[in-house]
Amino acid sequence: MALSKTETVNLGTLEVGNGQFLVIAGPCSIESYEQFSQTAQSVTDSGAAMIRGGMYKLRTQPHSFQGLGKEAFEIVKRVKAEQNIQFISEITDPRQISDFLEVVDVFQVGSRNMHNYALLKELGSIDKPVVLKRGFSGLIDEWIFAADYIRKGGNKNVVLCERGIRTFETATRNTFDLNAIAYIKKHSDLPIIADPSHATGDSDLVPSMALAAAAAGADGLIVEVHPDPPSAKSDGFQALNLHQFRNLMEQLKQILPILGRELTTKAN
Amino acid sequence: MALSKTETVNLGTLEVGNGQFLVIAGPCSIESYEQFSQTAQSVTDSGAAMIRGGMYKLRTQPHSFQGLGKEAFEIVKRVKAEQNIQFISEITDPRQISDFLEVVDVFQVGSRNMHNYALLKELGSIDKPVVLKRGFSGLIDEWIFAADYIRKGGNKNVVLCERGIRTFETATRNTFDLNAIAYIKKHSDLPIIADPSHATGDSDLVPSMALAAAAAGADGLIVEVHPDPPSAKSDGFQALNLHQFRNLMEQLKQILPILGRELTTKAN
Amino acid sequence: MALSKTETVNLGTLEVGNGQFLVIAGPCSIESYEQFSQTAQSVTDSGAAMIRGGMYKLRTQPHSFQGLGKEAFEIVKRVKAEQNIQFISEITDPRQISDFLEVVDVFQVGSRNMHNYALLKELGSIDKPVVLKRGFSGLIDEWIFAADYIRKGGNKNVVLCERGIRTFETATRNTFDLNAIAYIKKHSDLPIIADPSHATGDSDLVPSMALAAAAAGADGLIVEVHPDPPSAKSDGFQALNLHQFRNLMEQLKQILPILGRELTTKAN
Amino acid sequence: MALSKTETVNLGTLEVGNGQFLVIAGPCSIESYEQFSQTAQSVTDSGAAMIRGGMYKLRTQPHSFQGLGKEAFEIVKRVKAEQNIQFISEITDPRQISDFLEVVDVFQVGSRNMHNYALLKELGSIDKPVVLKRGFSGLIDEWIFAADYIRKGGNKNVVLCERGIRTFETATRNTFDLNAIAYIKKHSDLPIIADPSHATGDSDLVPSMALAAAAAGADGLIVEVHPDPPSAKSDGFQALNLHQFRNLMEQLKQILPILGRELTTKAN
Repeated sequence: MALSKTETVNLGTLEVGNGQFLVIAGPCSIESYEQFSQTAQSVTDSGAAMIRGGMYKLRTQPHSFQGLGKEAFEIVKRVKAEQNIQFISEITDPRQISDFLEVVDVFQVGSRNMHNYALLKELGSIDKPVVLKRGFSGLIDEWIFAADYIRKGGNKNVVLCERGIRTFETATRNTFDLNAIAYIKKHSDLPIIADPSHATGDSDLVPSMALAAAAAGADGLIVEVHPDPPSAKSDGFQALNLHQFRNLMEQLKQILPILGRELTTKAN
Repeated sequence: MALSKTETVNLGTLEVGNGQFLVIAGPCSIESYEQFSQTAQSVTDSGAAMIRGGMYKLRTQPHSFQGLGKEAFEIVKRVKAEQNIQFISEITDPRQISDFLEVVDVFQVGSRNMHNYALLKELGSIDKPVVLKRGFSGLIDEWIFAADYIRKGGNKNVVLCERGIRTFETATRNTFDLNAIAYIKKHSDLPIIADPSHATGDSDLVPSMALAAAAAGADGLIVEVHPDPPSAKSDGFQALNLHQFRNLMEQLKQILPILGRELTTKAN
Repeated sequence: MALSKTETVNLGTLEVGNGQFLVIAGPCSIESYEQFSQTAQSVTDSGAAMIRGGMYKLRTQPHSFQGLGKEAFEIVKRVKAEQNIQFISEITDPRQISDFLEVVDVFQVGSRNMHNYALLKELGSIDKPVVLKRGFSGLIDEWIFAADYIRKGGNKNVVLCERGIRTFETATRNTFDLNAIAYIKKHSDLPIIADPSHATGDSDLVPSMALAAAAAGADGLIVEVHPDPPSAKSDGFQALNLHQFRNLMEQLKQILPILGRELTTKAN
Repeated sequence: MALSKTETVNLGTLEVGNGQFLVIAGPCSIESYEQFSQTAQSVTDSGAAMIRGGMYKLRTQPHSFQGLGKEAFEIVKRVKAEQNIQFISEITDPRQISDFLEVVDVFQVGSRNMHNYALLKELGSIDKPVVLKRGFSGLIDEWIFAADYIRKGGNKNVVLCERGIRTFETATRNTFDLNAIAYIKKHSDLPIIADPSHATGDSDLVPSMALAAAAAGADGLIVEVHPDPPSAKSDGFQALNLHQFRNLMEQLKQILPILGRELTTKAN
């Protein structure tokens, strides 16, 4: 399968697409300096090139833990300075973009906001890259149009992220639509990464589905990792621990060359 | 079936729920003074108690017609003054709320924004009612939680609106989940209205599905009506013309008393 | 909405379609002479024109109650003789057709067998009518083609039955696709009835959804009724008791004339 | 990922599961001796261990090509004798089992018949293995129960086959639920193979999705291959040509050892 149509997109100083495979890892929510710092150190040692972490969490129930908010900013700044690492986090409100510019290298738009055109348009006018997750029931075509809302504003650094869709099957949290990855590689120039954590909702399934996403043609992964998943404040059931993530990266390093892709490294 | 648990909610000076059946009608997009004024006059003559009309349209494709925007405000003000009618329109950006307060009596949150918690929270802090449409793939429980995001902020005047969900069936634009209406009547105190226009995407199916929604227990309807559907700038295929809407209202007036409900009138 | 395209189909000596509204009622499974006889007497008193009852039950789990089988035949024969009533039951195996001919007036094909073309073809060669339920995920077009498999064999007396489809929503057992009813009335000459029992899976929702199906344009209903739902051997949670069914029929008798339809009666 | 729970199942004299990876290939429909013989020769040269081919085709439309039927039996017998190869074909009617026993080594139950319990029960009483495809909207649990219908009759040689489910997405023929493969490996002792041809409906996507299925944990593949896909009498759009299949097998031979699996060969 020819992957040559995919553009290389720069996420900060890192490359994704056109043979460069980018792994992003980190906790669902930033909970403390210790938790975030330890996770960042470990996942980059294992081969991740960028770190993720939620600051403002979108939760279905209004009374669930909603993230540390502003308090997380200081943690992120300190860890970035100490470890020289790039950071991605989810933005949910166009009014927060200027604040976020202080700490994020890449903006993530979550599933709940794939159709939030007010947010997409605003992200089109800034000069930092955007990872755009697919909506729960977003058609592939709608998703590409959503990316166009950003690109139309001038911001060309957009990467799609498949994270599972909503179907009748309830044994897994979502249905991981890997066909969409193979389809996007054929029909779009947008790089596409995959989120096996949300797509399965089950840490037992994450490693094999991460490899499956790579085999389907993904240009990278975003994986939830926590030093102690059972104690996580959100979504611990789908997080790998540090050791499990290291094992996944070992398998990935073996399989990527066969698939014609190269792991993007922090030092690139 | 006991409908008694449903609260009566005031939409402006109008009542919905607890036996009061409210019909909202009007064009998908406000296109001109003539189009909006004529539609408003006709649908209220036929029995609608409130008028709808899009000012900022959310469109999947970034190059589609996006509504008249600010220009529509003057049209709405003029028609409201001339006809003494209340008006509902879709809000898509929390930064537009203060502008909207000038012209809308009720805010509508569309399907694409059911999960836009930044918007929902902001609407919780104002004193105008909100009609909250169900997301394309919103679970009933998530929808009730979304309403709670608004009510938690202090704004208790929230009405749900079933507008069809996304399924494997493509013969109709959406699958109209009328079970959700019967379910909400049993399990929630929120009034619920139905949008047969988006739920079917086919003006041929709108009249019977509007009656079906009433029979399922809906507390009202929101129906797209256009003086000349084939010339509409958006979604004309699902709009009733003025005559078809009048016929629907005639049938509705016959069926509502049998279902134990009373049509809310403008003069109430 | 013009209903005139629908053919009148004879189910035994009864008519359905083209303004004639047929109600079929009875237990999910035939459990005993007393249970079946009492139900038959009561539902026909209330206005049902035909009785249903499972003899061989298709169950997802191989160890669940699978019906009385052959033993049910004697019960059916006795009740039919005593009460002069017509009977419909589900056929699941083409090798059972000849046995069934002894007791059924109408064959029902269930959701699990909408695509069982071996069975459909065999039913095309007999001279008794067939009610064809929609598959869990049957597209409307596939369903019409399935009816054509029967009609192509010479058996023209086919009636569709909408019984809910499988979607992401789990608050109700299935999603009742009433759009499909309105659509079939516009695009096919096949009569269509509705099964609110399976479509909701909740006896609390059955009465309002039965009325909604009639309003959407259905030509009839098939409703699960049991003298004591909590003690039923299968699907008791979705069965109406005898009193609830009587109340539903009272409402239906009021609403059908407004919808331009007439209840088919046993004595017709 | 521990694969150790999966039983090894014998398909004829071949093994699948517990590290043995079985590839089945061949045309959708057997069209002629030349077409079937040439395909069989080529796919086994490339590494397939068993050949597939439809004799009685289930088609949605009653007037579509329905397979050669009995005529295909002589072709199959001749090719099997000449090439010493094992053969799998789809059974759709319990009354055809005794005929099929003459030519098939393995019975395939298609998606349309996952819930056809009359057929499943009959297959439980024979001594040839069964590949059971998932229904269009079969829940994973229902699928395992369907396998139990066969195993309960005494026939323990059952293999599941994921072939895509029906969802709202229409860009691909089905949504390939690879999560189901990873889930089955964790929660069932049944081997599971994957059908990337039906799951994508697009030969461009088949090679990468075949590799993805292997990475997700599949114990084998069933792939549609045709010497000249554009001229195929059914489903040519999803068939690989002989050259494309050979390339896929080359990639698979590289990737399987990393995934801890070994290709089952004809000579085993």
